[in-house]
Amino acid sequence: MNQNNLPLYEALWSFRNENPISLHVPGHKNGLVFPSQAKELYQSILSIDVTELSGLDDLHHASGVIKQAEDLTANLYGSKSCYFLVGGSTVGNIAMIMATCEAGDTVLVQRNSHKSVINGLRLAKVKPIFIEPDFDVDAQIATTMDDASVIEAINKYPEAKAIFMTRPNYYGYTKEIDRIVSIAHEHNMVVLVDEAHGAHFGHPSSLFPKSAIHSKADIVVQSAHKTLPAMTMCSFLHFNSQLVDENKLKYYLQLFQSSSPSYPLLASLDLARFYLANLSKVELLLTLEKINEFKKYLNQIPQLKVVENEHFHVDPLKVTVQSCCELNGFEVQKLLEEEGIYTEMADLHNVLFVLPLSIVTDLLSIGEKIANKLKGKSLEQKSVKVANESINKISSLALSYEQMENVEVEIIAIEDSKGKIISEEIIPYPPGVPLLVRGERIENNHIEQLFALRKSGAYFQGADVFKKGMKVFKNV
Amino acid sequence: MNQNNLPLYEALWSFRNENPISLHVPGHKNGLVFPSQAKELYQSILSIDVTELSGLDDLHHASGVIKQAEDLTANLYGSKSCYFLVGGSTVGNIAMIMATCEAGDTVLVQRNSHKSVINGLRLAKVKPIFIEPDFDVDAQIATTMDDASVIEAINKYPEAKAIFMTRPNYYGYTKEIDRIVSIAHEHNMVVLVDEAHGAHFGHPSSLFPKSAIHSKADIVVQSAHKTLPAMTMCSFLHFNSQLVDENKLKYYLQLFQSSSPSYPLLASLDLARFYLANLSKVELLLTLEKINEFKKYLNQIPQLKVVENEHFHVDPLKVTVQSCCELNGFEVQKLLEEEGIYTEMADLHNVLFVLPLSIVTDLLSIGEKIANKLKGKSLEQKSVKVANESINKISSLALSYEQMENVEVEIIAIEDSKGKIISEEIIPYPPGVPLLVRGERIENNHIEQLFALRKSGAYFQGADVFKKGMKVFKNV
Repeated sequence: MNQNNLPLYEALWSFRNENPISLHVPGHKNGLVFPSQAKELYQSILSIDVTELSGLDDLHHASGVIKQAEDLTANLYGSKSCYFLVGGSTVGNIAMIMATCEAGDTVLVQRNSHKSVINGLRLAKVKPIFIEPDFDVDAQIATTMDDASVIEAINKYPEAKAIFMTRPNYYGYTKEIDRIVSIAHEHNMVVLVDEAHGAHFGHPSSLFPKSAIHSKADIVVQSAHKTLPAMTMCSFLHFNSQLVDENKLKYYLQLFQSSSPSYPLLASLDLARFYLANLSKVELLLTLEKINEFKKYLNQIPQLKVVENEHFHVDPLKVTVQSCCELNGFEVQKLLEEEGIYTEMADLHNVLFVLPLSIVTDLLSIGEKIANKLKGKSLEQKSVKVANESINKISSLALSYEQMENVEVEIIAIEDSKGKIISEEIIPYPPGVPLLVRGERIENNHIEQLFALRKSGAYFQGADVFKKGMKVFKNV
Repeated sequence: MNQNNLPLYEALWSFRNENPISLHVPGHKNGLVFPSQAKELYQSILSIDVTELSGLDDLHHASGVIKQAEDLTANLYGSKSCYFLVGGSTVGNIAMIMATCEAGDTVLVQRNSHKSVINGLRLAKVKPIFIEPDFDVDAQIATTMDDASVIEAINKYPEAKAIFMTRPNYYGYTKEIDRIVSIAHEHNMVVLVDEAHGAHFGHPSSLFPKSAIHSKADIVVQSAHKTLPAMTMCSFLHFNSQLVDENKLKYYLQLFQSSSPSYPLLASLDLARFYLANLSKVELLLTLEKINEFKKYLNQIPQLKVVENEHFHVDPLKVTVQSCCELNGFEVQKLLEEEGIYTEMADLHNVLFVLPLSIVTDLLSIGEKIANKLKGKSLEQKSVKVANESINKISSLALSYEQMENVEVEIIAIEDSKGKIISEEIIPYPPGVPLLVRGERIENNHIEQLFALRKSGAYFQGADVFKKGMKVFKNV
């Protein structure tokens, strides 16, 4: 297949150049009816913000230019088929769970999965078995599930229908999953992968970690907007399975996604694939060289260090810097914003940078700005590192999702919570992995760990359980 | 509230003008990393295609500029609260069903509801009771449910949790629903309205039909992209209820929508509200005058007539023309496309035009093009009109959605289908209302009607049941 083609984008471009008269939706009529002050930003894109007109195909029954664009993507990544998503990886994660599992089915799930995965499990009313990922004590971040834990879970729950993995993690850490996929398939378990942060792993060179697609995972979802140049909310769903009913997957994709999908978004997926396919290895090597120089520069700033871990394949586009000074990660992030430098994320210790496939801004001058901003900050570290003592590597819920819907909730003091079933998530950062998941029974060591983490300086997103108490299910 | 404000759009505009350095997603880095041939169309919009950065709020926990923009919208429409949707009215329809009903609940539903409504009912595993809309024999289109049928259904199923209505219909037909809403509320039934085609009904003048919001419907979903100048896939969800748990609704909105919602789309909702609020009555009157002149012109073309119906409030932005010549509606639509005139939809008899809130193209010259294109077409009509004989105004399913998931399907000849339960939808056009809905039992008069409709020239979307047979559930 010719990866120089842009079937969808070019169809829109040609259509626009014919100056068609619109007696149809949308109401802006190719951008003519629009508030004048916003025309500068919107008018050009609105000229292709059209609807399913002749020749422009239909996302939910793709057979023309959208299908061609999807096929080119499948061809580039080596998947059986690819579906363009305009509802983000959120839709992909939910749809692949719904397409794979029936209510009551057992699913093995990485404990620190994205919110959309937990939502999908709950919607599908399955029985999740959570597997805790490992913890990098130096970096203070959760990494990936180790093979031994996954294999233990497979053996303990051989009836499981699927394994849900997240790779890479937010910070770009990955491990090969070939062995796990092969063992799962031997047990007739489907492997579903949230590869939201790994769309660029499909580059023809071997300069990035291997995509789960190449490890024969059944369905892989990638946010094409995160590292490729697609518009925000655009993702690829790769289908590669001999176990999953593809028609059921298609049904859920049309169910969860708009019946009026955005053409500018869809075409940006065509453009993102084109960009990746035509990015030369030489240019990419230059990018990686510049990123390495940037890392070296950052490592010379006394207040920072670049996080490294040789035990993983780490995505080179992700640079995690750790504070070695009096500021915590959040404070470093905020300082950089004062300089107009906006970063991806901060945690208690780290700030995460996401770099592009082609370096368009002078990274060393950004490095200088960072160095100047941090100059003089005391090297006395205030944030203490925690040891994450995993309580149960493998755990299940004490109540099913269906039961949880029909039980009343009450708020009690942490000290009184032993033996109760929690009805909220308790996520300490670090490690950023739920200590308690909604529906789990609270044990003594959860309570001990909770106090230990607080003492060592972890913070807790959402409700302050220390002040306000813990939400638990009543009388169960 | 000052409807001249554009809180969300202006926050993005200011942010962009600071030339921020992006070390975060998306991968296009404010449009700098992008295929060169598409920069002309995309670059300006990509400068605001950002993520949840400081000061830009968060759709799923809106408390800043997004909340302000939503509040201005609620204020304009007179709803209690408004939610911006980036997943289209599809997401709104599904979320309002899920937030209102538990599995097994009875819901009264307009029989010709949008696909997303049927998907929502199936996902929620409710028990739908279908109410057939009336049929306009002259126009050959389904209109709205009559009050008597709805009241009959309410009395027959007083345990129903909700009534789901679609208004206006695709062709712009509406009726006042105040009485029905009030009777429903007396029975503690929630009124959910798919007002996808009526976002402009919120204009402060009384030049459009009344919005369901003003008739006190509980939740109303509007496609802001259909008639307002929002980008495609953008909708408003208006919440107005004292019966529905708003937190449950919020839960489902965050579940079904991307955790990385598109800012250009969100800001276009702010702009669409601004446009509607600031469109003067004088300008709108001018628009309506031009549309009336256009209709008069069209009515002088011998091959066409403009469809009118005095028994309804018809949206003036919708113009339905009916073929009075040898061509059917589809053929007229195709001819117009040869002239670069793209219309919203065609059926066997009609072609539907959707006109904008401000007339930016010369409608009379479009009229001339249409007249010239149709000149000489014989006035001998080939498409025969059907009488839609409603079989049951109110009907229920013979199998629950849960049962349907576990029963095998077989294909049999129509002649043998009496007494079987159908497993697909049979939708003849006209009338565009399902003759058989998946899960209904096939009766003799369904089969008779099917043959009668075919004989009279109706066509059937999807599978050709006459050639290939009918999909039915096996052994039930």
